[in-house]
Amino acid sequence: MTESLDRATFDPMAYVAEQARAVERALESLLPPEGDDPATIHRAMRYSALGGGKRLRGVLAVAACRAAGGAEEKALPLAAALEMIHAYSLVHDDLPAMDDDDMRRGKPTTHKVFGEGMAVLAGDALLTHAFWVLGRLPRLAGVSAGTALAVIEELTDAAGTMGLIGGQVADLEAEGRTDVTVDHLRSIHLRKTGALFRACVRCGALLAGAGPETLQSLTDYADAFGLAFQIADDILDVTGDPQALGKRPGRDSERAKATYPALVGLEEARRMARQAAAAAREAVAGLPSPGRDVLAALADFAVGRDR
Amino acid sequence: MTESLDRATFDPMAYVAEQARAVERALESLLPPEGDDPATIHRAMRYSALGGGKRLRGVLAVAACRAAGGAEEKALPLAAALEMIHAYSLVHDDLPAMDDDDMRRGKPTTHKVFGEGMAVLAGDALLTHAFWVLGRLPRLAGVSAGTALAVIEELTDAAGTMGLIGGQVADLEAEGRTDVTVDHLRSIHLRKTGALFRACVRCGALLAGAGPETLQSLTDYADAFGLAFQIADDILDVTGDPQALGKRPGRDSERAKATYPALVGLEEARRMARQAAAAAREAVAGLPSPGRDVLAALADFAVGRDR
Repeated sequence: MTESLDRATFDPMAYVAEQARAVERALESLLPPEGDDPATIHRAMRYSALGGGKRLRGVLAVAACRAAGGAEEKALPLAAALEMIHAYSLVHDDLPAMDDDDMRRGKPTTHKVFGEGMAVLAGDALLTHAFWVLGRLPRLAGVSAGTALAVIEELTDAAGTMGLIGGQVADLEAEGRTDVTVDHLRSIHLRKTGALFRACVRCGALLAGAGPETLQSLTDYADAFGLAFQIADDILDVTGDPQALGKRPGRDSERAKATYPALVGLEEARRMARQAAAAAREAVAGLPSPGRDVLAALADFAVGRDR
Repeated sequence: MTESLDRATFDPMAYVAEQARAVERALESLLPPEGDDPATIHRAMRYSALGGGKRLRGVLAVAACRAAGGAEEKALPLAAALEMIHAYSLVHDDLPAMDDDDMRRGKPTTHKVFGEGMAVLAGDALLTHAFWVLGRLPRLAGVSAGTALAVIEELTDAAGTMGLIGGQVADLEAEGRTDVTVDHLRSIHLRKTGALFRACVRCGALLAGAGPETLQSLTDYADAFGLAFQIADDILDVTGDPQALGKRPGRDSERAKATYPALVGLEEARRMARQAAAAAREAVAGLPSPGRDVLAALADFAVGRDR
């Protein structure tokens, strides 16, 4: 870690990959051990959360903590909790009653392996366990009870009906509709993925004791990042390689879901994604290095990825 | 409230009913308004959580707060959060992939009215919103950030795989098994309902700043209460009136679920329930009135109820 932060040799992409591994290790150590009773649910939780994820949310939190002047390590338990919340939302989203997906991150979805009842419970358990971790942030991350509660406030807004869950509802309700506009699509994504991205960087920065100006820059960054990420996600569903993607592309159009390529065409969607990534880099240009470089690299990664 | 606490005229059962109404009002005011966008999920949350519940968990928290020297009002936001967690667990438990129940609290279950996908999301939203409330306890209940976090620690243990969710898993896995013993059944219920009852009284007492001795008495009370409640629940599934119960009885035996009446017979089950209620009363005999009287009344209610 020290080495990768040396100014002369600093490689943002290597740093991102390194932090993704650190987030994976934190997740691994903070999830209940597989052998602990009741073993089935612990296996289902670990199956759903470990292996294969890009860890973008966790790395965003870690990088934002760093960009706000804190050590990466301080944000690792938070990063793990964020990835648990993300994993829970995927497990429930993949259920037959929702998107009915069979593959995720290159392996069969949780309900395909453990059954629907256990998948519902595994999602519930991942969400609950995220708050288990957050409730213990003073011990796990050396922050005050007040800071831990501020993080919980941010995250319960982001994960609730005004954020993540609200986005799922709007998504469910927009399916098959032919009158969805770019503005409407943007408002769905602001909730479905944007709110959690915003909470990732804001909570990471809160752990570092960031002031209002830094928080504002990071919030602007997160909003542009979220847009870039989502457009890229829609593009990948059209152009992506199933092997790299770890899931079957083309699912959006099968379900007649509104997407950026469907609404504005592939080329314009690509231009919009690049523009949003540039706006994200711009938002953090005033923050100190290497924090801002890492955040810039993450924005580039969000639009340049193949999965 | 003042009147019902007058020693000469104190009526524990009237007090319990009064506090149940106060919990219902707190729940009503802390759930997102029905008209707020996205309206469907807010309607589903309110449909699932409001109306018809006994509010036993909320009243336990309020009564424990009082028994530990705090004002009832202080525990109302906590009580609402506990009822949200209880409601979420019922919504998910009733899903076709779990217990597949059509009726609950005298009305069609959430998935029957809103569809399965929305019921999964409504449960998720109720759980998330419970933590939304708990994260704001300093503002809502005038407690310190440290106390709010202590409550979150208790509740995430109680609601997780060592508690509520673990009990659901064990319940799912024990279905149809013929080798379940009374000890095994007790261990399922300790998690499925016992852990949350325990958290109700412990968290209520934490808000009042209870010391270790009071916490221990209340923990012993909760464990005995939970046993009494569960045996009574099993008995009601055999002898209950569908109208009063608000759901169809006989579901346990249809699903070949292990129950106390099935394992030890109806008469012995009734004796065990009365014995557990007596143990609950005994555990809080050393606490001041009227707190202990209310808790004693609740234990009597748990075994004497018809729903």
